[in-house]
Amino acid sequence: MSAVTCQISMSLDGFVAGPNQSIDNPIGEGGMRLHEWAFATSSWREQQGSEGGEHTTDAEVVDDVVRNVGAYIMGRKMFGGGDGPWDESWRGWWGENPPYHTPVFVLTHHPRDPLPMQGGTTFNFVTDGIESALEQARAAAGDKDVSIAGGASAVQQYLGAGLLDELYLHIVPIILGAGERLLLDVGHPALEPIEVIASPAVTHVRYRVTH
Amino acid sequence: MSAVTCQISMSLDGFVAGPNQSIDNPIGEGGMRLHEWAFATSSWREQQGSEGGEHTTDAEVVDDVVRNVGAYIMGRKMFGGGDGPWDESWRGWWGENPPYHTPVFVLTHHPRDPLPMQGGTTFNFVTDGIESALEQARAAAGDKDVSIAGGASAVQQYLGAGLLDELYLHIVPIILGAGERLLLDVGHPALEPIEVIASPAVTHVRYRVTH
Repeated sequence: MSAVTCQISMSLDGFVAGPNQSIDNPIGEGGMRLHEWAFATSSWREQQGSEGGEHTTDAEVVDDVVRNVGAYIMGRKMFGGGDGPWDESWRGWWGENPPYHTPVFVLTHHPRDPLPMQGGTTFNFVTDGIESALEQARAAAGDKDVSIAGGASAVQQYLGAGLLDELYLHIVPIILGAGERLLLDVGHPALEPIEVIASPAVTHVRYRVTH
Repeated sequence: MSAVTCQISMSLDGFVAGPNQSIDNPIGEGGMRLHEWAFATSSWREQQGSEGGEHTTDAEVVDDVVRNVGAYIMGRKMFGGGDGPWDESWRGWWGENPPYHTPVFVLTHHPRDPLPMQGGTTFNFVTDGIESALEQARAAAGDKDVSIAGGASAVQQYLGAGLLDELYLHIVPIILGAGERLLLDVGHPALEPIEVIASPAVTHVRYRVTH
């Protein structure tokens, strides 16, 4: 059966976004530093349709984490556009050709028709909770995995509900000091490190969640 | 020149002690789980003068972290005995033969004569601040390293003041949810992972602090 996974970059002090997040700066102050290791790779650039970058261990990780994903689930804040009812002209943070290339299920309180984008990404808006979103994502993913794309709140909900099978953390050697903490109010799941990949920029640790 | 180091076990959500710490339970609820990986090793048992345990990768780490230490610095809470003036009958948490086997410098506001114990450990009480403690510890350590033994507050003070050269984290795959956070109010030091050792129980990451 396909797995429910999550891969996310976390600072050494546990944050996945910096302080003072806003609609204009959803990743918070200093939060972009969490992703510099990925931006430097050839794989990330290729996924964005551009060239260059370094072909490193980190690049192999960036290739690996998308390989078996058949659908994503994300919180509304990660799709973007504020908390209220939809302005239908808003098409998300991700440009006309988002980097997902699969169905994406957005957790929201406000209904909206599916939004097909270029490159195989379709945003679907789910208003009846995380289990419904997972059921729809599983159906869309077929034999492939469902990946919880973020943000912290979406990951917390799936991890806390015992619905996550695997958490793949990219532990970035920076200290943000404040911001959005990933592992907050998730209970005490049992985790087992099943793969560790070291690079000069980041430490990748794949955990199996054993519930 | 000798280095100033710190090696400490941290939960995946950033805690080095569990919630509801008290004089009777200084490591807090669930905090002992941070150290189970070490207790299971042959090296730790040998350091305590007992036998058994497993000779694993983790055991090699436990051997390695004491090898080049010539003196320790610890906070008063880690030595134990409450916040007020000393009850001179109190000889610390660590038994008559503490596991340090070197001079140990205890940060405190209350003066006390040095306390020699069995096995080479002498507790020295320093009332004039972290820089004085470091100076005394360096002198005692000679060519060897000075290790900040803990707790969180002592590590924070040395890291925040730019006095720590190396932070060796044992990242334990548990989520404590609350307790004493390690990397709090330490500013934004630059860290570089220089060694990663994986085991089924814990991920050991050695960071160079580049200030």
